[in-house]
Amino acid sequence: MVWERLRDKRLHDKVVQAEEAASWIEDGMTLGLSGFTRAGDAKAVPIALAERVKREGTKLSVNVYTGASLGSEVDAIMAEAGIVRKRLPFQADPVMRKKINSGEIMFIDQHLSHTAEWVRSGVLGDIDFAIVEAIAVTEDGFIIPTTSVGNSNVFVEHAKQVIIELNMAQPMALEGLHDVYTPGLQGEREPIPLTAVDQRIGQIGIPIDPAKVKGIVITNQLDSPSTIVEPDEETAVIAQHLIQFLRHEVEKGHLPPNLAPLQSGIGSVANAVFNGFLQSEFSDLTVFSEVLQDAVFALIDAGKIAFASGCSITLTAETMKHVMENMHLYRDKLLLRSQEITNHPELIRRLGLIAINTALEVDIYGNVNSTNVLGTRMMNGIGGSGDFARNARLAIFVTKSIAKNGNISSVVPFVSHVDHTEHDVDIIVTEQGLADLRGLAPRERARLIIEKCAHPLYRDQLREYFEEALTRGGHTPHVLEKAFSWHTRYAQEGSMLIKELASSR
Amino acid sequence: MVWERLRDKRLHDKVVQAEEAASWIEDGMTLGLSGFTRAGDAKAVPIALAERVKREGTKLSVNVYTGASLGSEVDAIMAEAGIVRKRLPFQADPVMRKKINSGEIMFIDQHLSHTAEWVRSGVLGDIDFAIVEAIAVTEDGFIIPTTSVGNSNVFVEHAKQVIIELNMAQPMALEGLHDVYTPGLQGEREPIPLTAVDQRIGQIGIPIDPAKVKGIVITNQLDSPSTIVEPDEETAVIAQHLIQFLRHEVEKGHLPPNLAPLQSGIGSVANAVFNGFLQSEFSDLTVFSEVLQDAVFALIDAGKIAFASGCSITLTAETMKHVMENMHLYRDKLLLRSQEITNHPELIRRLGLIAINTALEVDIYGNVNSTNVLGTRMMNGIGGSGDFARNARLAIFVTKSIAKNGNISSVVPFVSHVDHTEHDVDIIVTEQGLADLRGLAPRERARLIIEKCAHPLYRDQLREYFEEALTRGGHTPHVLEKAFSWHTRYAQEGSMLIKELASSR
Repeated sequence: MVWERLRDKRLHDKVVQAEEAASWIEDGMTLGLSGFTRAGDAKAVPIALAERVKREGTKLSVNVYTGASLGSEVDAIMAEAGIVRKRLPFQADPVMRKKINSGEIMFIDQHLSHTAEWVRSGVLGDIDFAIVEAIAVTEDGFIIPTTSVGNSNVFVEHAKQVIIELNMAQPMALEGLHDVYTPGLQGEREPIPLTAVDQRIGQIGIPIDPAKVKGIVITNQLDSPSTIVEPDEETAVIAQHLIQFLRHEVEKGHLPPNLAPLQSGIGSVANAVFNGFLQSEFSDLTVFSEVLQDAVFALIDAGKIAFASGCSITLTAETMKHVMENMHLYRDKLLLRSQEITNHPELIRRLGLIAINTALEVDIYGNVNSTNVLGTRMMNGIGGSGDFARNARLAIFVTKSIAKNGNISSVVPFVSHVDHTEHDVDIIVTEQGLADLRGLAPRERARLIIEKCAHPLYRDQLREYFEEALTRGGHTPHVLEKAFSWHTRYAQEGSMLIKELASSR
Repeated sequence: MVWERLRDKRLHDKVVQAEEAASWIEDGMTLGLSGFTRAGDAKAVPIALAERVKREGTKLSVNVYTGASLGSEVDAIMAEAGIVRKRLPFQADPVMRKKINSGEIMFIDQHLSHTAEWVRSGVLGDIDFAIVEAIAVTEDGFIIPTTSVGNSNVFVEHAKQVIIELNMAQPMALEGLHDVYTPGLQGEREPIPLTAVDQRIGQIGIPIDPAKVKGIVITNQLDSPSTIVEPDEETAVIAQHLIQFLRHEVEKGHLPPNLAPLQSGIGSVANAVFNGFLQSEFSDLTVFSEVLQDAVFALIDAGKIAFASGCSITLTAETMKHVMENMHLYRDKLLLRSQEITNHPELIRRLGLIAINTALEVDIYGNVNSTNVLGTRMMNGIGGSGDFARNARLAIFVTKSIAKNGNISSVVPFVSHVDHTEHDVDIIVTEQGLADLRGLAPRERARLIIEKCAHPLYRDQLREYFEEALTRGGHTPHVLEKAFSWHTRYAQEGSMLIKELASSR
């Protein structure tokens, strides 16, 4: 069984236990791990490392770079063991989040397309070990990744040594789905030749010099299933607003009948929006995204999506089983690429994507906070949302208009952290409605966002802020001393709602 | 003389006076004007239009789209006449600025590479007239622009009708400097074939269907000279910090000995930084920028710059005279392209630029405000700074650490408007020092920015803010109720300095 997958004979004597591989890792090292949104993560060696440190009581801390968030509790276990010094570019784990917010772990929240450039140019320092999951290593030395490509190719290329986790639980049917293309150095590279979503431009796997492989660990564990929640009434309404808008854009000739390649961020709201296409008239759709979630496969099954290019497959347990057992239905409709390519500004702009991402909060001028709750507490990270929003044909942000039973308004006077500026946000959609901000000045945007997107509970309060701001004047009127009063009120009183205003109604 | 320049015979009967051309423009129309940072602007027709409206007392307002800011008081005269409804994507005129800040003119502050995509896809509506300055129209119908290309090619292509201002004052020596390349529609276009700064990829001018030319107006007026101020002691020190940093990057192997293509924003600080290269050891430099200012020509004269690609030539009167009279010295070292190309994310990322732009203010976490004074009053606009910063190899922001005799600190707890987020800012330089933020988490960034970049007058005050913020915790610690207190203090007391703190020292 193992030899069917470990087909490069030069590697046969490198098989070791996870514990042995973990013993190679020393204090102060930098690790580049495979893994993107719970898919294809290195599972055994990082956990063995955490266990070793706990067992031996050694002081050891390492920098951990990945594609995006890890599954299999890898981030939680590493964080708990206290072995992570620096972490980038994205995470989504509650234990790690806590340590990031306490200042114990230094987290660098980075555009997901940028990490590869930093690794390549050496500004982040050396990578001591790349630890990447694979379904196979071919006769001629290509690592075939599992359910994600992420940054694995650039980690393998630039690491001093490589550890491969050969995962027997992942089906061989994944072989042939990957398209690995690595641009050369900046200033020396050619244009990326991709002009269509379904175009293959690279190699079937990650080329590896066997001399760099320090060890191969055999594993047997599927990815953690996605924790996506089913669409609810509000997310379904958001999808309806968005689809209605896209319909109008097609009618006006701004978009072709099959729209443009679609991107959707990770999470339940974005997944629900994609689900909305199931009942729509749109067909022959294409996807050029990072994570491919359940809805993408539902749309392929329904004949709505003709092709999907992504960086990872992150599915619920049920969908994962269905997809893996029926890969023959999908293999000519799917490609998995590195995140540098899926999120590359060159390709996003060229293809003219429709980018749909989730906001934590938006403000009346269209700035978006995607990361820091109340301006200070990191949720997950910006992920690829900035790569896409900046360069897309249509940069769309979706959010429910309120949270915490109405105690938080997702539309505020001034977002408490800015991840996407007014210059990068075209459309905002909540269950209340859709604001098309294109071609509007800030004062025009404010009225539209308040009337179309804010929850009725908060509309008067927003109008009052804006009217007071207008008395101060300016291109972007504000009452700076009250700009964050909604956030401080929530912190102190548990609600953004002004009680007197609310009770006088 | 005119016929030597108006070489397309099909256009000979279209010559009209500016007043006649202005009479064609009706209330509610949209105009696409040539002009980028005072260079190559349409001068006669918009001014004739303003004069007509003033003379006749008609109610007329139009949308005015340009490349960037206009010279020759065109923006001032149009604003004064009250004929501008909507203005995009950049301006730099005091009269217009005032009307933008009073809410009379709707200003859309846009990334300079984005306007062309919006015009091409039609989301901004029709352009009724493109009004573009030219030195000539060739026999086979190419408009040869003057000192800028800007958005002229896309305006000419998409406008219903075109008016050409044939400027006899601009030397014919400019012919052959332009390289006009227009990408196709998003989703249908090929890779932009440019892989080197000096590569010609397009045509010598803007192709024009003579049937679309409604009129040709003969003009005879040079561009407004640039208002750049000479480097002072502080900008010279900023340049020294930056050059020292680049030297170290070369030593570490992060950059080749001749660096990478350089971009610099418009303005005195950025020009001064470029001037700093004159005394440096660097040579064989290249420039891939939008505006080419005096310092670029000084560096060419000194044999430091091998090639400069830009979108406009904006010079002081003296340098302009020297350059125009000695174009033979420069013509094989210069290309002028459209702003969609000079600022294109695809090319900025591929070439791996070093991008140097000016900040109005920065905050302790590395967010940058480039546009709105005290968060509300528009200065000029974001310009191309976002196009470059996001996609560059090195995103550098420069600013003096204080302004208004020390009453304003350029380093604040929370910038009052965010144009460039923490994700997009690599390096901050003031006359105090340089902070290299790459690979640092927010808490690490804050300490470095305060110690390296803030003025000594404000360091304690910043340290106190940050220490208090740390007691609140979070990935990006803040004291939200005090985040803008520096700005409100300045508005109320005329200084950001806390008096008690300052006097107790």
